[in-house]
Amino acid sequence: MNYRMIVKIVGRVVGIEAILMLLPLMVSVIYGEDFKCFLAAIVPALAITAVSSALSKNCNNKFYSKEGFVSVALSWLAISAIGAIPFAVSGQIPNYADALFETVSGFTTTGSSILSDIESLGRGILFWRSFTHWIGGMGILVFMMAVVPMSEEYSMYIMRAEVPGLDAGKLNARVQRSSMILYLIYIGLTLAEIIALLLCKMPLYDAVVHTFGTAGTGGFSVRNASIGAYNSAAIEIVIGIFMVLFGLNFNLFFFMLLGRFKSVFKNEELRCYLGVILFATVTIALNIKSMYGGIFKALRYSFFQVASIISTTGFSTTDFDLWPEYSKVILLLLMFFGGCVSSTAGGLKASRVIILIKTANTEIKHLLHPRSYNTVTLDKKPISKEILRGTLVYFLIYILVIAFSCVFISLENYDFITTFTSVTTCISNVGPGFGLVGPTCNFSFFSIPTKLLLSLCMLMGRLELFPILILLYPSTWKRRGQF
Amino acid sequence: MNYRMIVKIVGRVVGIEAILMLLPLMVSVIYGEDFKCFLAAIVPALAITAVSSALSKNCNNKFYSKEGFVSVALSWLAISAIGAIPFAVSGQIPNYADALFETVSGFTTTGSSILSDIESLGRGILFWRSFTHWIGGMGILVFMMAVVPMSEEYSMYIMRAEVPGLDAGKLNARVQRSSMILYLIYIGLTLAEIIALLLCKMPLYDAVVHTFGTAGTGGFSVRNASIGAYNSAAIEIVIGIFMVLFGLNFNLFFFMLLGRFKSVFKNEELRCYLGVILFATVTIALNIKSMYGGIFKALRYSFFQVASIISTTGFSTTDFDLWPEYSKVILLLLMFFGGCVSSTAGGLKASRVIILIKTANTEIKHLLHPRSYNTVTLDKKPISKEILRGTLVYFLIYILVIAFSCVFISLENYDFITTFTSVTTCISNVGPGFGLVGPTCNFSFFSIPTKLLLSLCMLMGRLELFPILILLYPSTWKRRGQF
Repeated sequence: MNYRMIVKIVGRVVGIEAILMLLPLMVSVIYGEDFKCFLAAIVPALAITAVSSALSKNCNNKFYSKEGFVSVALSWLAISAIGAIPFAVSGQIPNYADALFETVSGFTTTGSSILSDIESLGRGILFWRSFTHWIGGMGILVFMMAVVPMSEEYSMYIMRAEVPGLDAGKLNARVQRSSMILYLIYIGLTLAEIIALLLCKMPLYDAVVHTFGTAGTGGFSVRNASIGAYNSAAIEIVIGIFMVLFGLNFNLFFFMLLGRFKSVFKNEELRCYLGVILFATVTIALNIKSMYGGIFKALRYSFFQVASIISTTGFSTTDFDLWPEYSKVILLLLMFFGGCVSSTAGGLKASRVIILIKTANTEIKHLLHPRSYNTVTLDKKPISKEILRGTLVYFLIYILVIAFSCVFISLENYDFITTFTSVTTCISNVGPGFGLVGPTCNFSFFSIPTKLLLSLCMLMGRLELFPILILLYPSTWKRRGQF
Repeated sequence: MNYRMIVKIVGRVVGIEAILMLLPLMVSVIYGEDFKCFLAAIVPALAITAVSSALSKNCNNKFYSKEGFVSVALSWLAISAIGAIPFAVSGQIPNYADALFETVSGFTTTGSSILSDIESLGRGILFWRSFTHWIGGMGILVFMMAVVPMSEEYSMYIMRAEVPGLDAGKLNARVQRSSMILYLIYIGLTLAEIIALLLCKMPLYDAVVHTFGTAGTGGFSVRNASIGAYNSAAIEIVIGIFMVLFGLNFNLFFFMLLGRFKSVFKNEELRCYLGVILFATVTIALNIKSMYGGIFKALRYSFFQVASIISTTGFSTTDFDLWPEYSKVILLLLMFFGGCVSSTAGGLKASRVIILIKTANTEIKHLLHPRSYNTVTLDKKPISKEILRGTLVYFLIYILVIAFSCVFISLENYDFITTFTSVTTCISNVGPGFGLVGPTCNFSFFSIPTKLLLSLCMLMGRLELFPILILLYPSTWKRRGQF
């Protein structure tokens, strides 16, 4: 293990965080609030960067997928640990464990909260809270572009399979340029949403923080009733559409910029994602029609909630925990489904689900006609055996992590729907669940060990499981390398 | 498709059922009850046998795995359809759909019931109800021995992997002899349990029917309070131990008869199965201690329930739906876990779970050390890639079937735990679930479409998914063969 290199990377990431924290500090200054809580985080962050930079001088450049995974996991942990300081120091979230949960939830773009009265917090702090979503969303794009490709067998294949006409090898070589384009798309979409929300007469501050929540598919709001507080169909439609957009494969936007619309519209993951949104929206609207006195109002609530859950954002405009069971089961399945790959969304991701269902179908067909063996395809390209195997194993580990976490959390003795959906919503980076963790509730009642476990689940879901699992493996820390 | 051969096989199986039905008919005669309801099933059954025998004369012998799966699925459906007649004709379960649910639940050794007052039924009918478990248990042993080996890639591998020193090819060649030995073991264990229960002062009739329920790991009782009605620690211990035994790989008993104790004790699935029982029993006992005023009474209830759920029998001695959440989550996971392969138990089966967890572990290790690739082993023998893939796909389809069934059943608008565990308990052939389908409740409140879907889930779980899935595939019925 190349420890020096890891220290160097984590130190740099923490340094970037310190610089980014100047923005909420400025917001605090503007609103005349106490900004010292941010200095309490920025100063140690810069110290860490300086020390790690000194420690890692002349480090060798040997860097494999193991180091890549470990640095990503440690970076995410480090920025969460430091990002929690302003919440704790300002006294707005007095318990550090709670502050850590909130910050992990922010950076992983989950949006699960321990706050019961959000509106009582300062504007600077709430800005920072939402800004963590935006940073996390950008962070995950870096991760997808730069770190995942290091291990060929896992998530990279999805990009390779997904992006029509883009070769993984070439992609890897021009990571720098591509990353820059993705960031520009991310920033462009962010600005577009802010402007659209301003046009819907949302105040600037609210527009900015809710755009952060949408862009990262996070879901933190500055209002206790989330987007429902504005009671504006226009705002709901704008945010609903942007949630769907941020759940799309960002490479598709790139293709649109290049004018390659044909390959965008033919994209199988896109069609499936939009098809699922359409199906869920319509059937849920029919299911909740009687609650809202008409199909149009039902469609409005249904579309917003479906877009919010499938993109794993987690905003709400109504207490969907009161909806009939069919709507709730569909929303629960959407949590597992998630958005597209190479987006800021969580969940299993649409292309994985497509590959899984096609695999199941192929197996049954193979039993019927043993001599013919149909290969699984995506966008008319065959999926290799390694990719199929990787996808099956990913699904397996996802379910195993949920099962083990449920056992642990069941010791708290809350009802099953609370236990089960708290884990599911965290690992899928959605935000709200059902029962005691429903859209009008929060996670504050859980014990500290449970909050830590759920934080780990959020990180696992965000980083495609393996970086965190590797971190937990004892053999990762056997000293084979040198410092 | 060799339709004639399929007709021949289904006709024969129905004929065997007609003969077996003479036993409950005799019981009805002995207790002076109306026995005509059995004749109403026996006469058409024999007619079907005669007609099918005439139709299938001179059929060719070409018989592949597809035909094997289809005949098994249709046989199970046919015996359920005919086995339901006595319930309906006698008026004891007036609705035929209910009677069908009860009979499918019997033959699949599930034990889910639509009856609210079991004790009001006649003794002959209740004997038949429990006897379907025993027949189903024996049927599944035939299935494992004769049909599953026809498709090399699926369940057979488990036997091959599982049985130390027994080669699949040789096993296939001596299926006849081996089947006979397995039946003798099954009958021997059945007699042993009846005698043990008589020694515990259970009445003969009760001892016989409860032994049927245990042997098939079914779980139908003739008492409303299940085994709890006897309030006897001795009876609970006897049934508890026999439930564990019937959840074991029957080949292990064969080895014990041959004196090969070493290979039995080294069997990895056995160790895992017993280890899980021990862990679950102890931790649940600690969890429920305060409810039963002491660890010993808690252990008694805990052991019985763990043995009942892991062996997918479904007897109960107490309302475990009232237990704390930890105990309930563990019991729910045991439903998925199930017994050992080549037993009468359902669920995913212990060796599949072992293979899945080892696969997950190997993948993470592989990411850490990409150059070294550890193969997954069972009983120190490497598991082939096809087997690993088959196991992953089996797990995937198991979860997909549960998800799709939950969506369908959610339309009934019952709570999530009822919806989710009704499907889980049916596909795992356990019997009771939680919530409205808890141990003191029954399945009568569901609509007929839901009951039919749950019946299909029971059949899927019992027949290792594929025979029923193939039956539902349109391309199965394309006329490529001749009649």
